Amino acid sequence: MPADVPASFRIVMIGAGNVAWHLAPALEQAGHQMQAVYSRTPEKAAALATRLYRAEPTASLDFSGFEAALFLIAVPDQALPEVLRQTRFPQGSLVAHTSGSQPLPVLKAAGANLKTGVLYPLQTFSKVKPVDFAAIPVCVEGSDEETLQQLKAVALSVSPQVYEMSSADRKALHVAAVFACNFTNHLLGISFDLLRQHHLPANLLHPLILETVQKALSFPPFMVQTGPAVRNDGAILAEHLRFLQTEPGYRRLYEVLSASIWREAEQKE
Amino acid sequence: MPADVPASFRIVMIGAGNVAWHLAPALEQAGHQMQAVYSRTPEKAAALATRLYRAEPTASLDFSGFEAALFLIAVPDQALPEVLRQTRFPQGSLVAHTSGSQPLPVLKAAGANLKTGVLYPLQTFSKVKPVDFAAIPVCVEGSDEETLQQLKAVALSVSPQVYEMSSADRKALHVAAVFACNFTNHLLGISFDLLRQHHLPANLLHPLILETVQKALSFPPFMVQTGPAVRNDGAILAEHLRFLQTEPGYRRLYEVLSASIWREAEQKE
Repeated sequence: MPADVPASFRIVMIGAGNVAWHLAPALEQAGHQMQAVYSRTPEKAAALATRLYRAEPTASLDFSGFEAALFLIAVPDQALPEVLRQTRFPQGSLVAHTSGSQPLPVLKAAGANLKTGVLYPLQTFSKVKPVDFAAIPVCVEGSDEETLQQLKAVALSVSPQVYEMSSADRKALHVAAVFACNFTNHLLGISFDLLRQHHLPANLLHPLILETVQKALSFPPFMVQTGPAVRNDGAILAEHLRFLQTEPGYRRLYEVLSASIWREAEQKE
Repeated sequence: MPADVPASFRIVMIGAGNVAWHLAPALEQAGHQMQAVYSRTPEKAAALATRLYRAEPTASLDFSGFEAALFLIAVPDQALPEVLRQTRFPQGSLVAHTSGSQPLPVLKAAGANLKTGVLYPLQTFSKVKPVDFAAIPVCVEGSDEETLQQLKAVALSVSPQVYEMSSADRKALHVAAVFACNFTNHLLGISFDLLRQHHLPANLLHPLILETVQKALSFPPFMVQTGPAVRNDGAILAEHLRFLQTEPGYRRLYEVLSASIWREAEQKE
């Protein structure tokens, strides 16, 4: 680590949603000083502040009087432009966001004379479930080498898995993560819903789900694809679609996913 | 266990695909005697037989001279009608299949004077990956109480998780399993393919995938859904669809799955 990178940063967290909820305490535990926590909803800022040692909850975006070393913006992508428009940063501050999809240059809207960067923890965060930051890859990007090194130091303080990554690669990674996480979670939700509708215990599927994932992490998933779609078993597919006729949304997904599996299998043949 | 249920069965395995590949050795290890292994492809029957102590590989479906206690049919659903049409079973035999979707009465096609049943191991089987049968739920069904008890005994000899289940419930379970396993595996394959296309390391997504699944097994997935779709973030959705324009199949899945996630989220509001 270059000599000019401090081991401990004073940090302002802008946002009190799922990412901030886990990241702010992890940063504090790593030795940084959380100065303030912003949410436009005062109760949310207060709730996150109670998870921290001495962070000030605030609903104001005027940080011009602050001396933080790092302003971390962890708000939903939709809210980012408005937050950037409203926030007053001290001259020369380092401002970084935590988004998978927002390219670095969006932070130019925060004002001139700022150093900008990205610190993207590649994980799914829900307030109900604690996470172990040490197991989370963190992708960093900086507007200049010094900024990059500073964000790298912050990232390395919470996780050993730190990757320098361009905005373009980060976007590809985010799209892949949507498939691997958000879409997968939805399918698991549907499977449990089908069990519930038929009064079958949810844990029946647990071993299958664990095996599916363990296999997918050890073998190329397209190579170990199983089920009626990859066998192009028209009779079973038709029967399952008939079974799902009272759930047209699930039925549509079944059709589109089965067609995609078969298309992939055909390409390999 | 009723007194008339033997602890050890003589078993003929009809089929040498992924299920038979793992189930036959598991049955043998549980103390049963694998008498013969059928595949219409002699090499496949021979390959499975080498995994067994003294099972005879055969490409003939005439078992009329056999004295096996159980004929287990583990062939693809598509092949089942033809296999049932061709096979000669000894009078009074117990014939069971291992399919999730085939209702018990399909086995009537095997002939009159047979006891019929189902022994469905709820797992995804690939030849490349060993499985631990003790962690696999096995669903059993029988044409009469004695048959049910016999199949239950066989199932319990390989796994403590044995469920008596009707054909209708088994079909619901199988559809749910297709969502939880086959479709999930396909999405994981897509996510790794996107990483590969952008020269990003596949293991970047491993912690996210593990966390997604651990979370889904601990909390209702619809409740902990994250990502742009559940926030209905139109800008990110549009950007991701643009990103996927060179992969129209993936793009279509992205659209349909995102719409389904949003529909589910709306219902909850």
